[in-house]
Amino acid sequence: MIRVHHLETSRSTRLIWALEELGLDYELVAYQRHPETKRAPDSAKALHPLGRFPILEIDGKVIVESGAILTYLVDREGKLCAAVGAKEEYTYWMHYAEGSAMLPLLLKLVTSGVRTAKVPFFIKPITKAIAAKIDGTFTDGELTAHFGWIEEALEGRMYFAGDTFSAADIQMSYPIQASFARADMLPDRPNTKAWLDRVQSRPAFQRALKKGGEPIMTGTPT
Amino acid sequence: MIRVHHLETSRSTRLIWALEELGLDYELVAYQRHPETKRAPDSAKALHPLGRFPILEIDGKVIVESGAILTYLVDREGKLCAAVGAKEEYTYWMHYAEGSAMLPLLLKLVTSGVRTAKVPFFIKPITKAIAAKIDGTFTDGELTAHFGWIEEALEGRMYFAGDTFSAADIQMSYPIQASFARADMLPDRPNTKAWLDRVQSRPAFQRALKKGGEPIMTGTPT
Repeated sequence: MIRVHHLETSRSTRLIWALEELGLDYELVAYQRHPETKRAPDSAKALHPLGRFPILEIDGKVIVESGAILTYLVDREGKLCAAVGAKEEYTYWMHYAEGSAMLPLLLKLVTSGVRTAKVPFFIKPITKAIAAKIDGTFTDGELTAHFGWIEEALEGRMYFAGDTFSAADIQMSYPIQASFARADMLPDRPNTKAWLDRVQSRPAFQRALKKGGEPIMTGTPT
Repeated sequence: MIRVHHLETSRSTRLIWALEELGLDYELVAYQRHPETKRAPDSAKALHPLGRFPILEIDGKVIVESGAILTYLVDREGKLCAAVGAKEEYTYWMHYAEGSAMLPLLLKLVTSGVRTAKVPFFIKPITKAIAAKIDGTFTDGELTAHFGWIEEALEGRMYFAGDTFSAADIQMSYPIQASFARADMLPDRPNTKAWLDRVQSRPAFQRALKKGGEPIMTGTPT
């Protein structure tokens, strides 16, 4: 029995996508975000103390953390692995996606929250100035560096780890989708866009989208 | 030839520690933070476009991203692997350290920066209120959840992945060291403290400390 605990508009869409790519049967348990705070519900804490999504129940185990879940599935099925000679790149992107690329995007959510916070009108210029200061000294530079590097790494390549689609592409999809949705200050990235179109046109991704919905949240958590 | 590019007071101390545990010969190239901004120097960009530390030169390759570097070394040497039966836990902690645990600690750095920013005295209460709001609605809850979970996971255990020391312990050391240094609001965590004392007393860690210095930066980046 495979059961996926999935939070709408979150990184957990990746897991549904991976299971569709692997052609495995699974049960989907969907959770909604709080309509106002946009936070995840506490109900998943019954399955894992952190209660963070996605959560995979499989082979009598509960497995969390996207990179660890994908690694487990790839090892179990012997599919979606790195192409021959691309093992180091595969491991790199598997770690880089959540370990590095997501950080400036999450900070962007924080500064958006500061920018749009409900405060008296005479304080608004100050909150805006603080958000601009955090973005100016840190977030924007990091976004440019990270997503510029991804654009450069995809030059002349079809996929992140060699010439075949792998779990590294699934793992990298979330920061890339989020960067197009949340960081419109980023310049054109034709390689990244072409890669995204290529992987999102896969039938398994389309099925995952139908079952799990859009991966990226609109609006800012409060 | 193995060469380690190491930034003082950073996550890159872990790499020196791993090489000491593995008993490998290596050349250490040390970099200092900017004395005022505390940011890393740009000079490492000649080696890798992101210029982030640590950077490992080995077997004719340049490898970055802590989790990927450690995985490479473990595979190459066949040492510091997970104990038998603990492979999933090993993979989990390898990803969780930078993919999840570091986020609230990095946000804490941001809110500390907002709190201590040089602003006119009449604006100070507002900047402090914004930092308190970010911490109150997000950072503090996340810190408590993550480091509470780590404390719980270490109950009755010697190491993160089974009963022997592994690279997962090295990977987890940085968020844990940072949590004790930067998040003094966290309650007592006897299991975590005992684990930290245990791994930091290892001769290889002591040698790494001597060569690379303390891993945790004091003061706030500006």
